[in-house]
Order: sequence, then C-alpha cells, then structure tokens
Amino acid sequence: MNIKDIGEFGFIRRIAPLGAIRSEGVIKGIGDDCAVTSLDDERCLLVTTDLLVERVHFLLEWASPEVLGAKSLAVNLSDIAACGGTPQDAFISLAVPERIEVEWLEAFYRGMAEHAARYGVNLLGGDTTGSRSDLVINVAVTGIVPRDEVLFRHTAKAGDVIVITGPLGRSGAGLRVLLQAMDIPPEVKDPLVKAHLEPRPHLEEGRFLATSGACTAAIDVSDGLSSDLWHLCEDSGIGAVVHEDKLPLSRDLSRCGELAGKDPLFWVLNGGEDYVLLAAIKPHLLDDLQDQAHKQGFTLQEIGRFVKGSRMELVRPDGSRRMFAAGGWDHFD
Amino acid sequence: MNIKDIGEFGFIRRIAPLGAIRSEGVIKGIGDDCAVTSLDDERCLLVTTDLLVERVHFLLEWASPEVLGAKSLAVNLSDIAACGGTPQDAFISLAVPERIEVEWLEAFYRGMAEHAARYGVNLLGGDTTGSRSDLVINVAVTGIVPRDEVLFRHTAKAGDVIVITGPLGRSGAGLRVLLQAMDIPPEVKDPLVKAHLEPRPHLEEGRFLATSGACTAAIDVSDGLSSDLWHLCEDSGIGAVVHEDKLPLSRDLSRCGELAGKDPLFWVLNGGEDYVLLAAIKPHLLDDLQDQAHKQGFTLQEIGRFVKGSRMELVRPDGSRRMFAAGGWDHFD
Repeated sequence: MNIKDIGEFGFIRRIAPLGAIRSEGVIKGIGDDCAVTSLDDERCLLVTTDLLVERVHFLLEWASPEVLGAKSLAVNLSDIAACGGTPQDAFISLAVPERIEVEWLEAFYRGMAEHAARYGVNLLGGDTTGSRSDLVINVAVTGIVPRDEVLFRHTAKAGDVIVITGPLGRSGAGLRVLLQAMDIPPEVKDPLVKAHLEPRPHLEEGRFLATSGACTAAIDVSDGLSSDLWHLCEDSGIGAVVHEDKLPLSRDLSRCGELAGKDPLFWVLNGGEDYVLLAAIKPHLLDDLQDQAHKQGFTLQEIGRFVKGSRMELVRPDGSRRMFAAGGWDHFD
Repeated sequence: MNIKDIGEFGFIRRIAPLGAIRSEGVIKGIGDDCAVTSLDDERCLLVTTDLLVERVHFLLEWASPEVLGAKSLAVNLSDIAACGGTPQDAFISLAVPERIEVEWLEAFYRGMAEHAARYGVNLLGGDTTGSRSDLVINVAVTGIVPRDEVLFRHTAKAGDVIVITGPLGRSGAGLRVLLQAMDIPPEVKDPLVKAHLEPRPHLEEGRFLATSGACTAAIDVSDGLSSDLWHLCEDSGIGAVVHEDKLPLSRDLSRCGELAGKDPLFWVLNGGEDYVLLAAIKPHLLDDLQDQAHKQGFTLQEIGRFVKGSRMELVRPDGSRRMFAAGGWDHFD
C-alpha cells in the first residue's frame, strides 16, 4: 500500500497510537498544530516541526535564499500562533546537495535570522548534512503558552462563530502563477506571489485570541480552508456552515482567476498556505472581540458558524447550499 | 564556495552568530550536543535534532525498517545522554519517496516506538511529506536536566582524566563491512554490523556522570574519537594525551582489520557513530567513580589526560608520541 492511498492524515491516524509511551505531562500529542506538554502548574511547552523538500514544496528559482529562509521559519511560527503561544527557539536541519554554495546557505540563514529577530526567536541549533539530490529543510520550533490559554483544534462547539484573521486563496493563486509561469500583469501577479513566498505568521492574532476568553478553538490555514475547517469539525465532532459572500475576495485574486480561467473561490477554499488563523468564537462575545480586534489593528472576519452534525456546507450568494469537503493540499496527491 | 571547502563545523561557526536573537534563558546555543535553555530556577530544557538522509547516512538494504527507526531515535537520545539529561519527547519528520510503502513506514515507527518505550520517550508529533528522490528522516528530541547537572563540552580542565563509557571503532568497522559488502565470517561481521546499526544511547551512563560531581565535561562519540575529543579540547581551550594501549580493541575488530588489510586503530580513532560518551573526570575522584561505575555495571575506561596547550597526542605502546588531529566523519567529505 502506498501512502497516497491513505493520505498523510490517514497515515498519521495509523501511527499515532504507537507513540504514546508515557502519558504523564502530555496534554496533546500527535494531531494538533503543536504537541502540548506540561512544563509546570502554569505553563505548557509547545513543539512543532515542518519539513520542506525541494521539488515538493518549493523550487530554488522561485525565491531568493533569504525569502526561503524566512518562510521556512514562518510556517512553523504559524503553528505556534495557532496554539496561542509565544515562540521561543528554532532548530534548523539542512540536507544540502553539493550544487548549493555556502553563500546561498548564509543568505538563507540571514533571511531566517531577520524573521526570527522580528518575533524574538533564537536559532539555537540543528544539523547540517549532505544530500545526494534535493535540498531538504526541517525546522523545529518551541513555544510557551499559559496552561489556561492553549488553543486546541478539538474544542470548538456547535453555535460558535467561524472567523478568519486574514485573506484566503492569495497564496494558492500565487503558487499557481509560479507553477505555470503565468504571463500576467505584475500588479496582479506580484502581490499573489508575495503572499505565497512571504507569509506572515499570525502570532499577535494568536495571543489576542488566546487571552480573549472568547475563542474556543483555532488552527492555522496551511492545507486550505476546506481541509483545515474539516480538521476543526472532525476533531470537535461538529459540522460547519460557511457563507460564500462573507469570504473575502481581493481584486487581484479575482483578476487572476479571470486570467487563469479559474473560479477564484477554488483557491479561497482549497489553495492552502494562507497561514491566517481559523478560529471558533463564542457567539455572544463576537461583537466585543471584533471591536477590540479593530482597535488593535487585527482582522477578524466572520465567515460562518459551527453547527451540529458532521457536514460542511457552503451557502451560495443566491441562498442555495452545497456540501463541500476537505480538498486542500495533500503532499502525497 | 562549497560547504566541502569549510566543512560542517566551519559552516556552523559562520552562521551561529546570526541566530543569537534573545539571550535571556539561553544557556548554550549552537555548538554543543544539545541546545540548553532555562525552564525555571531548577531545570533546563535540552533540544537536539538529527537529520538522516538516504544514500548519505544509510541504504535501505542495510537494515530492516524497525532497525532504522530505532537507530534514528537512538542517535538523538545519545545527544541527550551527552548533556546528562533525561529524554522526554520525540518529533519525527519524514520525506517519503513514492517507492516506499505504508507497511515499511509502519514498521519504521514500530521500531522507533519500541526503542522509545525502553527509555520512556513519547513520539509526540512531526511532519510527513513526499520526496522526489531520497527518504529523509529528521528527529528532534527534548530532554530535561537539573540546572546544576548539565554536562557541557567547553568545561574540561587540563589534568582531568579522559574516559569512555564503551568500545570504539566497532561501528566504523561495521560500516566498512556494509559499504564494501565484505565477505568475512559471520562471527566477525555480525557483531560489528550490529554495532553500526543498533547503537545503544548511553543515557544511564550520562545520568551517572551528571550526578557524580566528578565529571567536568562530556560529548558523545558520533563523529569519531579524534573529532569528538577535538571538540572537547577546542571548546575547553586545552589539549589531550591519549594512550594507545588503553584504547579497547576487541578480538572481532582486530580480526576485521586483518581481513580488510587495515589497522583497526584507524576505526578506533576515526570510525564514528560509536555513541559512547567521552568525558572529563576530576582526577582525584576517578577511583571512587570507577568503583561506583563497576557496581552499577557501567564501563568507565580511562584512555588519557587533558593537558595544557592545544595539541592532541597519541602515546604509542613503545612510548613514542605522535600528534593526531580530528579525522572523523564529515558528511561533506
């Protein structure tokens, strides 16, 4: 059997039970954005790790080493954000093929270090080794979060409002532009490619939600809205209704859709790598929370509701409804 | 410039300063077996990470997936041992080419989980993704150690006794047997190949040394005695004298040397992947410590002394001396 047949998450479900050796201190193991363990009565340690492989996740010609370094860190910081945490230290493993020069690697670290400095994260160690073929980057990041502020995936409730902390689909469209080397005007192309290559981890939004007392669950949108909403629904044992006309659709994304002959809603639902937070908010606290978010300069866009059941439905602008399923990125597709 | 020109450690020296963003809480960053950060007044967090790449570190035909899984974890546990710590949780990232089946991966995790259970380590998370070419395995492990018991590399003193906690060279010889598919008797070959494929992390020895009050510095022998002793010397600002006749040389290792037409001392000095601990012991406490070690079933073999200066010398059985230098494994050689 190939891993393609069961998908990454099917595989995780099979191996997760093997790893639970010692339950003491473990608050959440495999199956959330971060592993969560108890440090003491008041604090939890978060650990997350992401592996980026050349020709699977990126091509070297897409971006400068600085940009790739910053992104390699950012995608991990996004996981810390999704758990409501403050990142601490990063550990970088690189498998480096011979064709890559030291100057390139130094620029990669420089880009990562600049991004790390922005968020007060140390680059504390790692491993550097050779590779016979592709460049491989693994980044592991630790974070800290007060025990009563951890945001999980499995704790959303039917009735909670679904919010997002930023735009969707732009990164997915940017990836399409890169993959197909689309010849479209720079004012359409550049911001979308930038959304793909230079994601901002929503760490401040994560802390805002974690300390609000209004947020019952969160995840970062890495696989795509449909997939990550499905993770929240499945893990919380509920369904969701999303209103299409509440999903933000920027002018350049629409224009890119026109030029590519593609409904931009596809990218909004399934594009992935948006790295905004998708959260569940207690409905009676939503207005207050949105006021506070507005004052602090955060976006908190309501896009739907969690409901009883196990279905995800999309309400079209004409009021009709259609089911939608997890259709985002799977690295084995 | 290629990384080969400056070596892994030359590269680390160039990028390490970039990563020091926030000094608060950081006890040791890049450049020890583990990064060491402060958890509270009494405890430190250890983090280590190792990247294993197919065709650089291993070939799939050398070992069963169970054995490869166990080894991938063991090499990280050895880093925790070298810092005197107790391992806590492991995070596994895999980049999986299509030719590898789910059944193989499950066996890999099973082998790792069995090894994890032996040492009370959880497999708490990670990342699984595709690869276009080689299988890549990154394991990150956290550990805990009381603040006043951390073993570092940079704290050995001239006059301290150099000890090892187990045999050297066997793994290196085993690797040679595998690489050259040497046709030698199984009673010679099998134990050496096993030493290479199934290292035991010296966690109990590490805790024994850490709590002894007699150990001033330690490292695990992963790159080879000459390289790892050099790390201790360089970081501590001292030299070393090693007595060849005190270096343990097993019968099968000698026999393998004869059959391969190679001086087995080469493997003892430079073989690497021994995963025993190399430690500095206060000389007046050595006898007591060796007594205690003996009672607890540990090996604590004296092999020489740290001395003033910056040279590493080997005393031959005839009393003559020769300099030796770091000559172990470099993954960019």
